Amino acid sequence: MKNSFGSSVTVTLFGESHGAAIGAVLDGIAPGIEIDEDFIAGQMSLRRAVGKISTARQEEDKVRIVSGVFNGRTTGTPITFIIENQDTRSRDYGELAYKVRPGHADYTANVKYHGFQDFRGGGHFSGRITAGLVAAGAVAIKALATKGITIGTHILSCAGINDRGFENIPEDIARLNGIEFAVLGDGVKEKMIAAIESARDDGDSVGGRLETAVYGFPAGVGEPWFDTIESVLSHILFSIPAVKGVEFGEGFALTELRGSQSNDAFYSEDGEVRTKTNNCGGILGGITDGMPIIFRTAVKPTPSIYKDQQTVDMNTGENTTLTIKGRHDPAIIHRARVVVDSAAALVLCDQLALRYGTDWLAEK
Amino acid sequence: MKNSFGSSVTVTLFGESHGAAIGAVLDGIAPGIEIDEDFIAGQMSLRRAVGKISTARQEEDKVRIVSGVFNGRTTGTPITFIIENQDTRSRDYGELAYKVRPGHADYTANVKYHGFQDFRGGGHFSGRITAGLVAAGAVAIKALATKGITIGTHILSCAGINDRGFENIPEDIARLNGIEFAVLGDGVKEKMIAAIESARDDGDSVGGRLETAVYGFPAGVGEPWFDTIESVLSHILFSIPAVKGVEFGEGFALTELRGSQSNDAFYSEDGEVRTKTNNCGGILGGITDGMPIIFRTAVKPTPSIYKDQQTVDMNTGENTTLTIKGRHDPAIIHRARVVVDSAAALVLCDQLALRYGTDWLAEK
Amino acid sequence: MKNSFGSSVTVTLFGESHGAAIGAVLDGIAPGIEIDEDFIAGQMSLRRAVGKISTARQEEDKVRIVSGVFNGRTTGTPITFIIENQDTRSRDYGELAYKVRPGHADYTANVKYHGFQDFRGGGHFSGRITAGLVAAGAVAIKALATKGITIGTHILSCAGINDRGFENIPEDIARLNGIEFAVLGDGVKEKMIAAIESARDDGDSVGGRLETAVYGFPAGVGEPWFDTIESVLSHILFSIPAVKGVEFGEGFALTELRGSQSNDAFYSEDGEVRTKTNNCGGILGGITDGMPIIFRTAVKPTPSIYKDQQTVDMNTGENTTLTIKGRHDPAIIHRARVVVDSAAALVLCDQLALRYGTDWLAEK
Amino acid sequence: MKNSFGSSVTVTLFGESHGAAIGAVLDGIAPGIEIDEDFIAGQMSLRRAVGKISTARQEEDKVRIVSGVFNGRTTGTPITFIIENQDTRSRDYGELAYKVRPGHADYTANVKYHGFQDFRGGGHFSGRITAGLVAAGAVAIKALATKGITIGTHILSCAGINDRGFENIPEDIARLNGIEFAVLGDGVKEKMIAAIESARDDGDSVGGRLETAVYGFPAGVGEPWFDTIESVLSHILFSIPAVKGVEFGEGFALTELRGSQSNDAFYSEDGEVRTKTNNCGGILGGITDGMPIIFRTAVKPTPSIYKDQQTVDMNTGENTTLTIKGRHDPAIIHRARVVVDSAAALVLCDQLALRYGTDWLAEK
Repeated sequence: MKNSFGSSVTVTLFGESHGAAIGAVLDGIAPGIEIDEDFIAGQMSLRRAVGKISTARQEEDKVRIVSGVFNGRTTGTPITFIIENQDTRSRDYGELAYKVRPGHADYTANVKYHGFQDFRGGGHFSGRITAGLVAAGAVAIKALATKGITIGTHILSCAGINDRGFENIPEDIARLNGIEFAVLGDGVKEKMIAAIESARDDGDSVGGRLETAVYGFPAGVGEPWFDTIESVLSHILFSIPAVKGVEFGEGFALTELRGSQSNDAFYSEDGEVRTKTNNCGGILGGITDGMPIIFRTAVKPTPSIYKDQQTVDMNTGENTTLTIKGRHDPAIIHRARVVVDSAAALVLCDQLALRYGTDWLAEK
Repeated sequence: MKNSFGSSVTVTLFGESHGAAIGAVLDGIAPGIEIDEDFIAGQMSLRRAVGKISTARQEEDKVRIVSGVFNGRTTGTPITFIIENQDTRSRDYGELAYKVRPGHADYTANVKYHGFQDFRGGGHFSGRITAGLVAAGAVAIKALATKGITIGTHILSCAGINDRGFENIPEDIARLNGIEFAVLGDGVKEKMIAAIESARDDGDSVGGRLETAVYGFPAGVGEPWFDTIESVLSHILFSIPAVKGVEFGEGFALTELRGSQSNDAFYSEDGEVRTKTNNCGGILGGITDGMPIIFRTAVKPTPSIYKDQQTVDMNTGENTTLTIKGRHDPAIIHRARVVVDSAAALVLCDQLALRYGTDWLAEK
Repeated sequence: MKNSFGSSVTVTLFGESHGAAIGAVLDGIAPGIEIDEDFIAGQMSLRRAVGKISTARQEEDKVRIVSGVFNGRTTGTPITFIIENQDTRSRDYGELAYKVRPGHADYTANVKYHGFQDFRGGGHFSGRITAGLVAAGAVAIKALATKGITIGTHILSCAGINDRGFENIPEDIARLNGIEFAVLGDGVKEKMIAAIESARDDGDSVGGRLETAVYGFPAGVGEPWFDTIESVLSHILFSIPAVKGVEFGEGFALTELRGSQSNDAFYSEDGEVRTKTNNCGGILGGITDGMPIIFRTAVKPTPSIYKDQQTVDMNTGENTTLTIKGRHDPAIIHRARVVVDSAAALVLCDQLALRYGTDWLAEK
Repeated sequence: MKNSFGSSVTVTLFGESHGAAIGAVLDGIAPGIEIDEDFIAGQMSLRRAVGKISTARQEEDKVRIVSGVFNGRTTGTPITFIIENQDTRSRDYGELAYKVRPGHADYTANVKYHGFQDFRGGGHFSGRITAGLVAAGAVAIKALATKGITIGTHILSCAGINDRGFENIPEDIARLNGIEFAVLGDGVKEKMIAAIESARDDGDSVGGRLETAVYGFPAGVGEPWFDTIESVLSHILFSIPAVKGVEFGEGFALTELRGSQSNDAFYSEDGEVRTKTNNCGGILGGITDGMPIIFRTAVKPTPSIYKDQQTVDMNTGENTTLTIKGRHDPAIIHRARVVVDSAAALVLCDQLALRYGTDWLAEK
């Protein structure tokens, strides 16, 4: 399968940046879960992130659900989300039909699809395709919430500015879900935005790191081979455009420690087994241990910049210079955060459905 | 599917550390590829890495192929590798049946399998299960080689000692494949081994980072969603015990750069499109661009250490202290390297078979 | 996966009979294949089969392609077909919300979805959902045609009237694709329609058998286990509502023969190996032998009849009598034929893409 | 995936008729289920069916379980069954290396695997490969039994002799599981064996139809698209060598009825909804309705016969005559019965695990 992911709960994405519509099919969600259209619209709005550090493209991103919902609840059959494209200024993309943009998928799409791809605005490789994922993810996030499982992502670093890490995880998650620019520390938002604006003023762009916590997820879920929780999460996370690194718990930093420092000691309290530290990010042997799942995602700088860049003209095969015009984000890290939440929620719903059965998330 | 991975070329792993046998089934490899039993034995030997910084467990790891090979070549049907366990001192594991080891899967396996798991030596969670993956991977590595695709992994860092990065990639790969302790820089091996021995002498352990290069892989392979090359590689890499981070190209370091620094400029030379830098690790939009595929893997310190650790007695639910005896590695990074090569080779064979057809790797 | 099928070429179906829209996502079709919108419309029309032996429901079944097509050709990314529902007289279905119809999925859907299913008009179980399959299948049929592979289905029997079998297969296929009521023999159409009308006049319904031939399909495609060509074809055929039997070649009749009668003798002619008879339906050991693929599909009588039937009121749990009103087909066999062609074409495209690579169908 | 089947409970088959060993990997079975080695051996014996109407090949078919079982119970990790081949008289197969046998997979294997296949005794296409399926199926049958679900198959017809159909299903199933030659009616066994012997004496072979009943399976399992219960059962059934037809309930005979005859009327009794007839074979809309699942399988005559047959010499491309020697069955229908039970049990375990979770079958 290509543009579909999951075993029991699955999502299929379709659409092109400047095509007629984009969207998603979400299948396998338990029947009887309430659809909160306001929440979906809110998540779409967080992804759109209209403002001066985001693209000037105006898209309402109104989600139309054409199947799988009846009387305000999931039916158990595929839920289809359709988002019509509206503000598609295809005139901006003339030269980009043949001059491949560095850092973008233009060249690889050209090789893969032999020139038949819809190149306008990045086509199917556009970050815009994540809108369908966010719509589907909104249903998954609400499905997890029925079992008390919450998820939140903050911008751990951007343009050299760092946020504080998670402290009280359930409280931090609650705070993140209420705000537009997802940072935890005081004054961090202003500094990051200033740094992003500085890059924008230079005709340049920045990237950053996202940190995600999942709270309340049960122990004992995942497989030793090959569907470890790390494997299935990283699989979907690395599908998100611009993601180039994923780590769990202390991740790469663990490689600097000794075993006596990195091992999380177990203790028993109130009849539950917990760990004193959580260096492993809630996952041991690929299987959840009941502690919060923690992971970090590296998002590379947005490749569309206004500086001249060297590239190749695919029509002539000659070296040339590219000057990108149009509407582009100096940063996408603040928009990617809701995409990461959505992707993770979809995978975790799938894992729970595989382990406990298709209807467990809707059971009282 | 659980202990199987891949779509067209697939691998299934089975076995427990102290069970009768371990092994793998490799399916979907093109018919007519020569089986090089010496190469398989060599790879097994690199994984076993007998020596004073490795476990004292004596296993011959003799691979018996019971199906899928006829007259010295692959038939196209499933190839089954069986490795009998020999040196299984189960007497070492008495207390470990109920005192869960920090950093290990003992606790999560207990929750997942309700106590029915084979706990001896980590059972199905043991690093020993990678022996089957290495046997299967040896066939995959040779299959890639028929098309001039080579792969090599070195220990980029271990216990605070760094190796140099890749320079001339095909030459560096060739060098790595000929040596037991996979480092590139002069004098690095001795320093790393000294650091590992120092940890061992403290009853402790260390981790490290592996860096892998794939050379000669064609452009245009992979999918935008959800089977990006990063997704499928990370999926299998995160299945390898102790892996807690994966990054492609410059990975997490990209988050500190601006777009003008991170974008890889394209240029044309001799009718081929290349990039001047390779920050993206040979993958753009999830699809290979023809440059070397580069990724790094974080391996946490071996969790079995000889220092006392706090844990829980699963029989009584009480807090207790654990003292691990038996035979354990102070480091596995030098052994994990061949596992990473094997895992990557299997996934890349699968991607090539999906793109070009089941028999492409064997076509002249 | 649930409402998705295929490995390299996949189709996902969504929608409910009386929901907002139905449709399909077709993924994995090679880039560069021409989209023939007239052919799609023609296939939709054959499925709709407006006339006095079909439902009086008036649906234009206009297919809107919102992704995956650019400049009239496939791009290689998911193709999404949306068909808006228009003539949805939900008022007809009041009593059917709780009185489950014999022969329908009303009861099993109620159990499976705990009463949350969209019961109107059969919801996701309606034959109407095949419209998305036919739209996707039309692209698959055209993709096969680029390699000279053709497919055709005729009504072998209906209401006790038999059609003649295939004789000159390529000619018979060509004939079938040009006609609305798919029979091969002279005068058969009139007899079958009369028999269907007779059932309709009795407030009853009929079923029938379809026979399908695929011509020009290459030898050597399929797997011994578990994806035999019979397995993958039957998998999708048994998904079509009302199908209760599938047989290949002489099928059940083979069980009455001896081996000396059923074996197809090989012979060589013009450098090609062929069989003198084709009792095996072009498939030996699960793999195509280059002869035409032949299969037959049993379609049960339409369950919606106007006679009173005994059933259970799901609200009260009491036995009751059901009288179905509304608009229903006395037969669907003449409409199912294009659904079978579509389903088979999708599976065969998938098999070819798996064997020869994703782009083979578009290669010159 | 090729030689693997299933989503949550999966089976992988490997081996060749005259290779070193054959076997299976069974993954995803709930932890804690008792392994009954005597039952496994009994099932192997039923498949082997040593006697004068079966092959003279002497194979002990001793099953060695090398993983996934600990203290006599399933652990939840892959269970590997290995059966060493012993009586491999490869000398019998000289001419068969290049003269392809009519009705066998010799020719299609040759095309698919470009001549690299292990041709000895049919290699991976041999009926012998079903031994691994039967071993795995024995565990699945016992797993179903923990929930009171039973399964049984009888020879409905063979060589023109008919058995009676199912009457009291649970009693009939119990009777079938105790006997070697699976028929229900009095005196049928003797007649069938006489007919088989008559064919054997003519150097010929016969086929037959199997009828299977599953009792106690819960309602509400299966999917509307594409994993209907018919779809997943037929998928695995059509993988069994020699199966050319599958029908559910009244199957092809339904096509001769009217809707008023074929619809199964619902009624309520003791708080349960049942149907008065079971023409649909316990499946409506692809989903189980709680009535017994009934299906029939067409098994073609054994292709290995002693009469001269016309074929092609693959070395020269010339037409030639083939005379088969060696050891062959005049009928396999009496052996195939346990293979069908096994295949069905594996698929049904998978469906239950998907619906109710991985561990449901082992829950009290």
